[in-house]
Amino acid sequence: MIRLYLPIQLSSDRIVELPKEQAHYLANVMRKKTGDEIAVFNGKDGQWQAHIADISKRNCSLTIAGQTKKQKPEPDLWLCFAPVKNAPLAFIAQKATELGIAKLIPVITGHTITSKVNTDRLRANVIEASEQCERLTIPQVEEPIKLEHLLSKWDSSRKLILCDESGGGKPYKTALADEKEQKHAILIGPEGGFAQSEFENLRKQPYIIPVGMGPRILRADTAALAAITCYMSLLGDWDEQPRFKQE
Amino acid sequence: MIRLYLPIQLSSDRIVELPKEQAHYLANVMRKKTGDEIAVFNGKDGQWQAHIADISKRNCSLTIAGQTKKQKPEPDLWLCFAPVKNAPLAFIAQKATELGIAKLIPVITGHTITSKVNTDRLRANVIEASEQCERLTIPQVEEPIKLEHLLSKWDSSRKLILCDESGGGKPYKTALADEKEQKHAILIGPEGGFAQSEFENLRKQPYIIPVGMGPRILRADTAALAAITCYMSLLGDWDEQPRFKQE
Repeated sequence: MIRLYLPIQLSSDRIVELPKEQAHYLANVMRKKTGDEIAVFNGKDGQWQAHIADISKRNCSLTIAGQTKKQKPEPDLWLCFAPVKNAPLAFIAQKATELGIAKLIPVITGHTITSKVNTDRLRANVIEASEQCERLTIPQVEEPIKLEHLLSKWDSSRKLILCDESGGGKPYKTALADEKEQKHAILIGPEGGFAQSEFENLRKQPYIIPVGMGPRILRADTAALAAITCYMSLLGDWDEQPRFKQE
Repeated sequence: MIRLYLPIQLSSDRIVELPKEQAHYLANVMRKKTGDEIAVFNGKDGQWQAHIADISKRNCSLTIAGQTKKQKPEPDLWLCFAPVKNAPLAFIAQKATELGIAKLIPVITGHTITSKVNTDRLRANVIEASEQCERLTIPQVEEPIKLEHLLSKWDSSRKLILCDESGGGKPYKTALADEKEQKHAILIGPEGGFAQSEFENLRKQPYIIPVGMGPRILRADTAALAAITCYMSLLGDWDEQPRFKQE
């Protein structure tokens, strides 16, 4: 079943003219016809059934029918990550979305190589991944921020899980054993690691949870994905059934 | 520090002529000179220091010095996976290696789209990833095997963790809570899922542990990576320090 993200108010019998990329996708890629059924969601009102009211090579309008799934939030987990080169960036955005991240924050550190981040492209990545993975929400993508600014305005009630390559952290599952299901974020450094002064400053913050992720060196993108996975399994929503099985 | 995999006997003072790809890499990519130090490993005898004895644009010889790290095995975890298209295959091989997989087995199922698997390329992928992630072992890459043959010769003392999209499995951490640190494998189905008869057959086997991985749909490559990650955190070696910190 095709699922499209439409950032509009959804209500029964509303007729919606699709943007041309979505019209092209339905008409020319998926070869949909008038009357065909698809699913739509707006990120906050669950999932809705819709029918194609009219379709041509360049235009498509939908009639919204009724709501078929209630809204469900993802766990309140953010990923703060030092941007890497383009392909891994798209990869991180896609996989983090599948794994259920709520917010992505590109963080510029002393050793961050890539200073320009195409956040519009990241937003397109997370929307596409959300459409495909049965999410009813879209992860928020923030503009890049310097590490020092991120920390200076940090809400200390949100614990920050620091993927600590120095060996100073407890093993991930041990470090999270005493955490309640509350709000958390994950912080992944750049390929070259944090600068020494950044690292010392991080370790001083009361909201930091340094964690170890085993004996092997993980690339930054692998570490991001692995840290989200473990969180979802230990504190997130992995005790829930696959969503397509739910009413 | 550059680390090279050399599948030869390592002993002090041995002089080794490198294959031309490795000579090219050291001379022209890394611009190494006579006397420069690198690290080498053969997958079974730990890590050794070596010096460049002679180097030109096309040839390079090394003098092996002494052993600097003792051999360490990875956890005895295999990944049995239905091959997907080429890019995700290289991705699975690389990430699975970083995460510590011991063996990769491509499995052909009823719904597997890709029937040809370039295992030579997969072996090159896992060697490159091993060199970069401080592993002292190289994952084994098996030739593709049909699911029915894999199961008919399965050693039932190795439990098979089935990533179960049907909602029939317990949550991952619950399903693994009673497992001892013993030998396991992970089985990931193809993009289209297992055929119904395959799935029913799998669920009948006494060595199967069906696990659930949350409400969102994971792509096959994400599921493979996430399943290995959780295993390493829960039953693997994530209580160990980063290896580059170890003697």
